[in-house]
Amino acid sequence: MNFSRRISIEQVEEGMQLAPKFDSDGLIPCITSSAETGEVLMLGYMNAEALKKTILTGQAHYWSRSREVLWHKGADSGLVQHVVEMRIDDDQDAIWLRVSVAGLGASCHVGYKSCFFRRVVLGSQNNHDSSQIDNMLQFVEERKTFDPKQLYGDVPNPTKL
Amino acid sequence: MNFSRRISIEQVEEGMQLAPKFDSDGLIPCITSSAETGEVLMLGYMNAEALKKTILTGQAHYWSRSREVLWHKGADSGLVQHVVEMRIDDDQDAIWLRVSVAGLGASCHVGYKSCFFRRVVLGSQNNHDSSQIDNMLQFVEERKTFDPKQLYGDVPNPTKL
Repeated sequence: MNFSRRISIEQVEEGMQLAPKFDSDGLIPCITSSAETGEVLMLGYMNAEALKKTILTGQAHYWSRSREVLWHKGADSGLVQHVVEMRIDDDQDAIWLRVSVAGLGASCHVGYKSCFFRRVVLGSQNNHDSSQIDNMLQFVEERKTFDPKQLYGDVPNPTKL
Repeated sequence: MNFSRRISIEQVEEGMQLAPKFDSDGLIPCITSSAETGEVLMLGYMNAEALKKTILTGQAHYWSRSREVLWHKGADSGLVQHVVEMRIDDDQDAIWLRVSVAGLGASCHVGYKSCFFRRVVLGSQNNHDSSQIDNMLQFVEERKTFDPKQLYGDVPNPTKL
């Protein structure tokens, strides 16, 4: 399969050709949400190969920016993401996947279902008081779905400071 | 209000301090979904000022990459996004906003409710047949919510090829 060339704004915004825009690193961001709950699970990145493999196999593939490899999500952990629906946005520079997660049903390497397991406290209560700066986040998920040490063993943590 | 410095992986991933990571352009991607329907509406980008203003005002602010200005979404069109919940992901390099959209309830400059108004056809039917390449996308929203020409007038289209 091939992507279409980006020819005009009308084609990209209002047409039916898939003409994705990859950034200067060759990547397109991908929002992945649960098809069952609607919850956003993660924001990943795809290169052209990952996008093609996702379309052709119906399983989410990403480009791992930390490991710099094509990443078939769940190939090692069993937490495969089966794509229920793929959408693309108006200017075709972002993907949205609605997925059903296999196995334990979690998508976050820390052990939670969603990578977005914390909320940010909103409003004017966020002032310069140091005790409040230390409590800007609240946990939404009460407990982890899996123990990352058990599932991933000695695989390096992908988070970079 | 201030953000915390990123000191350790444990602090960033498991702590309650807000320590967002901005990319080399000073931006953090922001997924915005409808608090009512769960549908993803757009993927935007925030700089530090936009993130702070969103937290303090409870209304979504972004950095417009096309216009290179702070962007109070809906300030001109009336389509203000009221933040119901803000979340941040494990390594704090992505934001998720759940919003209630004012006015006509749309968020896409093309006139649709969601920027993700087209789905990508999945599977092996995507081959090299040119008629199929021309029909890789299907419309999910049947009609526009507003006429962009009426709402925005002569404002330049933000989409770049």
